[in-house]
Amino acid sequence: MNVQSRHYRTIWLKEPEYRTVQVINQQALPFNFEILDLHTVEDISTAIKDMYVRGAGLIGATAAYGMYLAALESGESSFDNDMTRAAQILNKTRPTASNLAWATDRMLRVKYSGTLEQKQEKAKLEAQAIADQDADFCKSIGLHGLEIIKEISEKKEGNVVNILTHCNAGWLAFVDYGSALSPVYAAFDRGIDIHVWVDETRPRNQGAGLTAWELSQHRISHDLIPDNAGGHMMQHGFVDLVITGADRVTRQGDTANKIGTYLKALAAKENNVPFYVALPSSSFDFTILDGLKEIPIEERDSSEVQFISGKTKNGLIETVLICPETTGARNWGFDVTPAHLISGFISERGICGASEKEIIKLYPDLGG
Amino acid sequence: MNVQSRHYRTIWLKEPEYRTVQVINQQALPFNFEILDLHTVEDISTAIKDMYVRGAGLIGATAAYGMYLAALESGESSFDNDMTRAAQILNKTRPTASNLAWATDRMLRVKYSGTLEQKQEKAKLEAQAIADQDADFCKSIGLHGLEIIKEISEKKEGNVVNILTHCNAGWLAFVDYGSALSPVYAAFDRGIDIHVWVDETRPRNQGAGLTAWELSQHRISHDLIPDNAGGHMMQHGFVDLVITGADRVTRQGDTANKIGTYLKALAAKENNVPFYVALPSSSFDFTILDGLKEIPIEERDSSEVQFISGKTKNGLIETVLICPETTGARNWGFDVTPAHLISGFISERGICGASEKEIIKLYPDLGG
Repeated sequence: MNVQSRHYRTIWLKEPEYRTVQVINQQALPFNFEILDLHTVEDISTAIKDMYVRGAGLIGATAAYGMYLAALESGESSFDNDMTRAAQILNKTRPTASNLAWATDRMLRVKYSGTLEQKQEKAKLEAQAIADQDADFCKSIGLHGLEIIKEISEKKEGNVVNILTHCNAGWLAFVDYGSALSPVYAAFDRGIDIHVWVDETRPRNQGAGLTAWELSQHRISHDLIPDNAGGHMMQHGFVDLVITGADRVTRQGDTANKIGTYLKALAAKENNVPFYVALPSSSFDFTILDGLKEIPIEERDSSEVQFISGKTKNGLIETVLICPETTGARNWGFDVTPAHLISGFISERGICGASEKEIIKLYPDLGG
Repeated sequence: MNVQSRHYRTIWLKEPEYRTVQVINQQALPFNFEILDLHTVEDISTAIKDMYVRGAGLIGATAAYGMYLAALESGESSFDNDMTRAAQILNKTRPTASNLAWATDRMLRVKYSGTLEQKQEKAKLEAQAIADQDADFCKSIGLHGLEIIKEISEKKEGNVVNILTHCNAGWLAFVDYGSALSPVYAAFDRGIDIHVWVDETRPRNQGAGLTAWELSQHRISHDLIPDNAGGHMMQHGFVDLVITGADRVTRQGDTANKIGTYLKALAAKENNVPFYVALPSSSFDFTILDGLKEIPIEERDSSEVQFISGKTKNGLIETVLICPETTGARNWGFDVTPAHLISGFISERGICGASEKEIIKLYPDLGG
């Protein structure tokens, strides 16, 4: 999507050698637009773990490129072992995301044959195919989700459609287009009057820092709101539709997504606001049913809660403590929204209800 | 309560003249403990509006002392007019809080007679009586709420009772003791094993800045959590009890409190976690029924959402921007939790259910 009116993806191989992975440094946004060079599996691991890159699809694509870098680092005889070890390292970086293991699995399932160079070439092509597919799937999610927005817009006789989103499931969370925001971009491109309520998304402020930045770059009307506000806004009709992304969705539709998603789903249900989850098929985990029991929830460092970074009046990036020095903190990264609170899923194949039956109907080849 | 092991109230008259109101500057907490001198009605208005003082009970007590300062500023002949005008000015400072009008009304209902000095003395005594009553009522709230905590502690065979609270309804929000935190202090004093989950409470971070500070000063075990976390924590049994304060409660039990309270109430209901609202009778508004329709919700400046203040590594207080410069924000201060989500009210008279019938039974003299 656009950055200062120029098209970017979130990840690509550096030309002309294609031996270095380049990514947008999401730690530096929204105030600085920086490109990072990643040379090794270790660089890739750090980039995922420390969230220089983040978001369901992008984590998968980055891990795939990480496997390609592992292939470049590998020797002729140790190739299979090196690839397996790289997959193990990468899978451990973020426990909740489903796309991670999906991407490394797919990289391991390639039929590597021929010389080392030929194997490396195959790894490169597969990583690029994973990235391209992520972008394609997200584009399709946009077209399917567009229909939901169009319908609301027609019901409201062309008046502004207010869409609330939590965290960042925009193009920055994928290779391009995004999941939750892809329908927003599609609607905007077709001239539908839309406005986005951007949940700040504490503690890491992906809404304030990333979603607001994306929407600003595309000049899409939006406002930042505290995570606390959505319930009140739904009670008073300020929200027509909620769309969020997902980090992992079980076979029965339970959805792990950024911490706080569950609270918005409860409020949407109580106030009859449609609540959709947008995701590519790679975010489904067909091996598990009960999200509350079976999805591991990452707990991150308490400093992410105790400190906040931002830009001072003088233009410097500064980190400030917001609580007494002696106060501890807990920091779960995700929560699970039970399927019964979800109106439906928007995926690259279309829209389906949040039940095992409907999900499997859409994905008989993967989950059937 | 205690500050560095010394007893303080949040508001008092400066000795020996008793013509200046002194308050703890809550804008400076948690990093600096400062006392502010307020000399005029205008000083008082600014202190309430700009939240140097805040919290249901303290707003009421501050307004009462503001009326006393108005009496000091007044002339013999203009006394009644001056007092009425002062009440009008003070009532406008924060639209949602019920205690404001309650306190100024009570100050106007005093039978002012005799010389100007005698009238001023009556105003002083009434303001002090309002402040003393606030502290007394909060102390009683603690003793009634203690029973709820005790019961949970016994059920858990003495294992730690985890109490979640939103915003600050501690002693800083009142003259002393607090509403939601008064039972916590009472339980702690009796040696019950408790731990408090402190909701950060964006955008103004009263949890991180004030509740965490209060609990730190009393060495009560607590952890800061993002406002997004409570739902996940209730799903997984990390919360035994929610207690919040209230800014205004209608005759049928609908409760206006800090924005985000409603989301926690929804999660508590869904997960069978008891959800109590603690308040003195001055926070009831018996003149209205439907909180969603009848309680005005204050909308505050968007800069409170876009900027956050805290302490830098170098010990300076710094304010940082957390979103792109071009991103706007909306900032509703409160939301309304419908009575059906509330397990009960803890007031100075005892505990009652969240229904008109039960509330009126406890307050036949006020609302009957």
